[in-house]
Amino acid sequence: MIKNYPNGNSFRDQFTAQPKSNFRTAPTNGNVIYGNRGMSLEQEINLSNKYYLETGQAVIHKKPIPIQIVNVNYPKRSAAVIKEAYFKQASTTDYNGVYHGHYIDFEAKETRNRSSFPLSNFHDHQIKHMKACVQQQGICFTIVKFVVRQEIYVMPSQILFAYWDNQESGRKSIPYEQIKRESYLINYQISPRLPYLQGVDQLIKKINLP
Amino acid sequence: MIKNYPNGNSFRDQFTAQPKSNFRTAPTNGNVIYGNRGMSLEQEINLSNKYYLETGQAVIHKKPIPIQIVNVNYPKRSAAVIKEAYFKQASTTDYNGVYHGHYIDFEAKETRNRSSFPLSNFHDHQIKHMKACVQQQGICFTIVKFVVRQEIYVMPSQILFAYWDNQESGRKSIPYEQIKRESYLINYQISPRLPYLQGVDQLIKKINLP
Repeated sequence: MIKNYPNGNSFRDQFTAQPKSNFRTAPTNGNVIYGNRGMSLEQEINLSNKYYLETGQAVIHKKPIPIQIVNVNYPKRSAAVIKEAYFKQASTTDYNGVYHGHYIDFEAKETRNRSSFPLSNFHDHQIKHMKACVQQQGICFTIVKFVVRQEIYVMPSQILFAYWDNQESGRKSIPYEQIKRESYLINYQISPRLPYLQGVDQLIKKINLP
Repeated sequence: MIKNYPNGNSFRDQFTAQPKSNFRTAPTNGNVIYGNRGMSLEQEINLSNKYYLETGQAVIHKKPIPIQIVNVNYPKRSAAVIKEAYFKQASTTDYNGVYHGHYIDFEAKETRNRSSFPLSNFHDHQIKHMKACVQQQGICFTIVKFVVRQEIYVMPSQILFAYWDNQESGRKSIPYEQIKRESYLINYQISPRLPYLQGVDQLIKKINLP
């Protein structure tokens, strides 16, 4: 039995080269290029990273999914087949790379929530990883997509850290209004589809790095 | 049938948490801590990265092995099992991360060859990846271990690029003497076992980055 991800994408989609065309209902606001409809945030970012790489602007990749391999077959005259393996929890974020001498490290998350971004999108060791990267002067953020609003933000990790560290006593999600105020809205373009490095530029300027 | 890697380590070793103790013949020179005997270069680097992370010196991880998943089972009440998957060729290097604001990117390779380091240790897209990272002001290098000599070097990527780009007309390996002259020898220590960031420091100084 194949289960789907919460965003409605099939589990197998992320492993296949050809994205399945998977049209949803039309978004209600205008700031959208319709060719992007139905593409997952991950696919949009992967395409943008490909564009950034090909145009010599940045080298940023999604890391492979960590897997614990238990059993492998080596048939004669054909490729090795993994016959038993398990998903491991990632100890880092999904994306990293280099941009104009800066180390870039981020997660990409979609939410169907309109009013806030739930902290349950993260694991403790991902936050630890991002804090360690920030200490080494890496540029850390989350690309947050509010699916219903069709809005995508580059959210600085400091906002995430503040809410994460206070979740025992406080709320378990980051209010949409705060993200809107303190993050960088990314509008779709033709190339790259998701020009998120524009948000990263502003982030770097704000942190006051060279 | 389980095949071994060329360095003699079992294929399954890299997926198991407990490194198998696997003593080889004693090394012939003195600059070795005997507790390291039989550990693969990858294990030595992973341990060093763990130390660097825990002491707040750097955040550097080995990337998971890229895999193409074809079939997954979801048994009730237990974890998803990958029943069919294949190894994909990596399009980047094995290790990357951040160190004092620098993006770090490298491969780790062992050779039993005494007099040279064969270029067959690399694929074309790995070289392309490293060149793209250097263009973005990333710090790229190879950790080369001459197993028989028990010598480990941080080799700047420029040496690799020069030989790689000339291999059609020239030789297919990098002479040991040149690596010895133009790279940074790393001696084993207690903690971290392989203090390769000492070589990276010299590399950064030479490139004249801040």
